[in-house]
Amino acid sequence: MTDISVTCLQRLPIYLNYLKTLDGDGFISSGAIARALGMGEVLVRKDLAYTAAQGKSRVGYKKSELISALEDFLGCNNKENAVLIGAGGIGSALLAYGGFKNYGIELAAAFDSDDKKVGTEISGKPVFSMSQLKEKIKELGASLAVICVPASVAQTVADELCTCGVKAILNFAPVLLRVKDGVTVRNIDVAANLAILSSISVHKN
Amino acid sequence: MTDISVTCLQRLPIYLNYLKTLDGDGFISSGAIARALGMGEVLVRKDLAYTAAQGKSRVGYKKSELISALEDFLGCNNKENAVLIGAGGIGSALLAYGGFKNYGIELAAAFDSDDKKVGTEISGKPVFSMSQLKEKIKELGASLAVICVPASVAQTVADELCTCGVKAILNFAPVLLRVKDGVTVRNIDVAANLAILSSISVHKN
Repeated sequence: MTDISVTCLQRLPIYLNYLKTLDGDGFISSGAIARALGMGEVLVRKDLAYTAAQGKSRVGYKKSELISALEDFLGCNNKENAVLIGAGGIGSALLAYGGFKNYGIELAAAFDSDDKKVGTEISGKPVFSMSQLKEKIKELGASLAVICVPASVAQTVADELCTCGVKAILNFAPVLLRVKDGVTVRNIDVAANLAILSSISVHKN
Repeated sequence: MTDISVTCLQRLPIYLNYLKTLDGDGFISSGAIARALGMGEVLVRKDLAYTAAQGKSRVGYKKSELISALEDFLGCNNKENAVLIGAGGIGSALLAYGGFKNYGIELAAAFDSDDKKVGTEISGKPVFSMSQLKEKIKELGASLAVICVPASVAQTVADELCTCGVKAILNFAPVLLRVKDGVTVRNIDVAANLAILSSISVHKN
């Protein structure tokens, strides 16, 4: 289990989302999944082997069992608290977004440096001051954090999160964060993603 | 130029963002960039070789020239129009976001199926009805689109965008979109990203 690659982990939600779109509860083979998603069959079979799902030769996986196995593997059936730092435009949109629940993640609280926001609720989630970060993260047992602050303060926030014992950070600020060993960071630089797309159409055609 | 990989394209904005944080305009070597970002020197040197920047042996690149070369390569100095479909929470946050301009991209218009939003402006960007999609995309010469609609209608929207001649789609809906050849899609499934992070801390430690 311990040698699963990040790229494989990235594909598991794709299989899960696809399986959920299918009606009924028949059997589905890794080949059928691969064809539907335009992926290689060997790759799909190897990826699914990381889960506890047991495929039967010739028929494949029972759909409901494969969904459960993927959900177990991705932690959808655990409940895990996450906190969000920076309740601005993107931050507020994420607080309103219901999709985290599908993966067993609860955005339980937000933190902001704006006194006008502190003490209020955004989409039912309390907004705390930055000085309450450590206390609240401990209280919630949160090991995940989402950074939506401006680029200029993102590293400072990441440093604080590391001292609070956060294990994984999803970073929307357009900077490369340095974190200590044992903390994982994923970057979502929306503007850079759009620029890359634009460059792909220029440089790859 | 035509064989540049997507993973290399993803790294170019990271170099660009890092260089912009540096004061002054001295020379910087690929080795110094690599060390600062915790990346391999050979990789950095190869990546930068895709741009028109000319490094000098022993001293490296003049910072301002390397920034210009990266910006040129990423199309930051072109102006390219993009449209956004689905002016809900994430969509509205993106319309308010100023960071696209750094890459020469202008989110010029939004489209929504909600009659209450059509005809209004969000962060100064006009919201049009879905029936105006083809006409407005042509008018704007937009080749990029951002999909922020619910998962259930994302494929239909992607199909429409393809018939409108859009060349690249940034997709925030948690579904795998099928598009015709010549159209590039990048997926940003925020909830899945957080779930993957969570799984990394469980399965890789």
